[in-house]
Amino acid sequence: MSADAEVRLARAALTRICEPGSHGLAELVARRGPVDALAALWQDDPPQDIARDVLARRGVQRDTRDRAARDLEGVDALGGRLICPEDDEWPERVDQLAAISTAGDPAMPPVALWLRGPGDLTTLCARSVSLVGSRAATSYGTFVAGEFGHGLADRGWTVVSGGAYGIDGAAHRGAMAADGPTVAILASGVDRPYPLGHHGLFDRIRADGLLVSEWPPGCPPQRLRFLVRNRVIAALSAGTVVVEAAARSGARMTARRAVELNRPLMAVPGSVTSAMSVGTHQLLRSGAVLVTSAAEILDTVGRIGADFAEPPRGPVTARDALGPELSRVVEAVPAREAQPMVEIAAQAGIRVRDAMRALPILVGHGLVEESTTGFRLTTAGRRSAAAGNQPTSLR
Amino acid sequence: MSADAEVRLARAALTRICEPGSHGLAELVARRGPVDALAALWQDDPPQDIARDVLARRGVQRDTRDRAARDLEGVDALGGRLICPEDDEWPERVDQLAAISTAGDPAMPPVALWLRGPGDLTTLCARSVSLVGSRAATSYGTFVAGEFGHGLADRGWTVVSGGAYGIDGAAHRGAMAADGPTVAILASGVDRPYPLGHHGLFDRIRADGLLVSEWPPGCPPQRLRFLVRNRVIAALSAGTVVVEAAARSGARMTARRAVELNRPLMAVPGSVTSAMSVGTHQLLRSGAVLVTSAAEILDTVGRIGADFAEPPRGPVTARDALGPELSRVVEAVPAREAQPMVEIAAQAGIRVRDAMRALPILVGHGLVEESTTGFRLTTAGRRSAAAGNQPTSLR
Repeated sequence: MSADAEVRLARAALTRICEPGSHGLAELVARRGPVDALAALWQDDPPQDIARDVLARRGVQRDTRDRAARDLEGVDALGGRLICPEDDEWPERVDQLAAISTAGDPAMPPVALWLRGPGDLTTLCARSVSLVGSRAATSYGTFVAGEFGHGLADRGWTVVSGGAYGIDGAAHRGAMAADGPTVAILASGVDRPYPLGHHGLFDRIRADGLLVSEWPPGCPPQRLRFLVRNRVIAALSAGTVVVEAAARSGARMTARRAVELNRPLMAVPGSVTSAMSVGTHQLLRSGAVLVTSAAEILDTVGRIGADFAEPPRGPVTARDALGPELSRVVEAVPAREAQPMVEIAAQAGIRVRDAMRALPILVGHGLVEESTTGFRLTTAGRRSAAAGNQPTSLR
Repeated sequence: MSADAEVRLARAALTRICEPGSHGLAELVARRGPVDALAALWQDDPPQDIARDVLARRGVQRDTRDRAARDLEGVDALGGRLICPEDDEWPERVDQLAAISTAGDPAMPPVALWLRGPGDLTTLCARSVSLVGSRAATSYGTFVAGEFGHGLADRGWTVVSGGAYGIDGAAHRGAMAADGPTVAILASGVDRPYPLGHHGLFDRIRADGLLVSEWPPGCPPQRLRFLVRNRVIAALSAGTVVVEAAARSGARMTARRAVELNRPLMAVPGSVTSAMSVGTHQLLRSGAVLVTSAAEILDTVGRIGADFAEPPRGPVTARDALGPELSRVVEAVPAREAQPMVEIAAQAGIRVRDAMRALPILVGHGLVEESTTGFRLTTAGRRSAAAGNQPTSLR
């Protein structure tokens, strides 16, 4: 299955108009679909959390669809593509971000992802680990990152990282040294990966693996974007390893996301005299798993997260994070035979107008789908229900 | 209160006749008192687990009391002394070893301790931390041990260690550099501390702190003695920190004892490339608390083990480890007014002959004391009962 051309065009345009993670955008897309949502952003009052972005861009851009078409052509010319939640290649894992995103901390899933490279994102990430850490890494940190990257690739696992200097670069290089594909999640367009000094590295990554970005071609990296991007690094892989991090480090944001997503968080010990291990030691003191080798990483990821398509325990399925009102509605949605909205409202014991508000949000979370005869649970929705109701055994 | 001369002489002799930790000896002393126990060892069949030691020494030694008198005089001439469980200076903490000692793993409390130095053992150890680790330490390990030793002493805490090369020596030196007293637990006589190369260090330790040994003067260190000694290092302090340890290291025995005694076990992280941190990383992966500074050590010891004279939780009081039969008897022993054995047997619902067997063992564990009118709980026995019955709040 793949997104139709109009949907793809609209999602491409949305990546240019709004910064990622927004609740307002996610709800608008869930309620009206990407094509109508795009039109609405250009005509109506935009949702509050993206109003500034949208209004600024309305002022300078005439036709968003035209620009999106050129973006798609441009990326196509580079051998790249845009993948959408409607595509088979879309990694369902990133949609778990919807469950941890809150109004005060917008971390919604990407509306689409720009890709460059031959790899299939979902396939590559099925068995993947994120290796992250400081740019100002020590020789110890880069050595360990390289060793771990190599060891993971050697065992058939994909290394996910951010393409930065220091730990990220060493992790990608280690994986490629073992002839493994690796995935770099960027905070800028896939046509201008940052930093420039990693030009050669990025060329090699996209030869076998993937460059991935939420931002459209030409987009420059910005300080905030690196932090926003980190949620995707945590969400795409089965677990995250922080190799080196100072007391205040962007890697700690990736670590936090991994924990919120209920994915294993690991950290590498180092000298207590090294400023670059202060952050990792703090993580280890607050519950991260200490790892000293690729084998120990896979032990941890294998044990805790045997198959992350199905969360191994109940607490953080997308459904669990819905809150009482939406939970009540999702409980009333049939698993197989779609039912009209009024039936579901009756079943849930709520007013139809509340069901009208709730069901599109559940569609946006990927738990419910609409058909000609009404609404029913998606595969993810059924799976989430099963995971919530009965403990699944660990492998 | 202090032991009378005969008891002290008998206990001195027992330290020469038997290797420490023995169940057979502890039960014999509990049943017959140290004076009669000594006589029995020289006449009767010795308990199985010390038979080899005793028979070998019976063959070469004529009068154990005479030899013990000379040992006491010799140590006195060096400014040292012997302390016994009957003395006020005896650290009750070491008696908790009775609770973790099993037939397959004899780790009973010392029958007495030989001391050299001006410090009062119980006072010094009330606020103390054991810093231990490899002899073949790296410069990183000795640096950290020195820093931690200094930091602990600076905050008024005593550093307990084993006087060995490497981590131990650095820990003692760090404490003394902050003008803090430090305690070295030896595996040889206090007149011949090992290793010889630490001659100067030992002279400085006994100037302000203490040299401590279970073995009488002149005793050489032996490989097994270091391992046996480690239980005392763990038992005397409020918590144990392993600074560096190889995969197989004596420090791991000290670590195990700390865990068995329900004392906080801490470990220092290091480079994953260092063989000397393999053991500490294993400890951290199995639940030891990661510490990077003296402040973090005191945080851990303060939090978990607010006052180790009273264990903060029930599970490992001496009483808890007694097993069902002895527990039943100790429950029947009155807290204040001593009762004769027959009364206690009736109260416990057991035969008098079983009470005759059980009560001396409880006396040996320090939980029960005998008076002219019968048996009653000791202070430790009452405390242990209180700790077992009601959760004490952590400050």
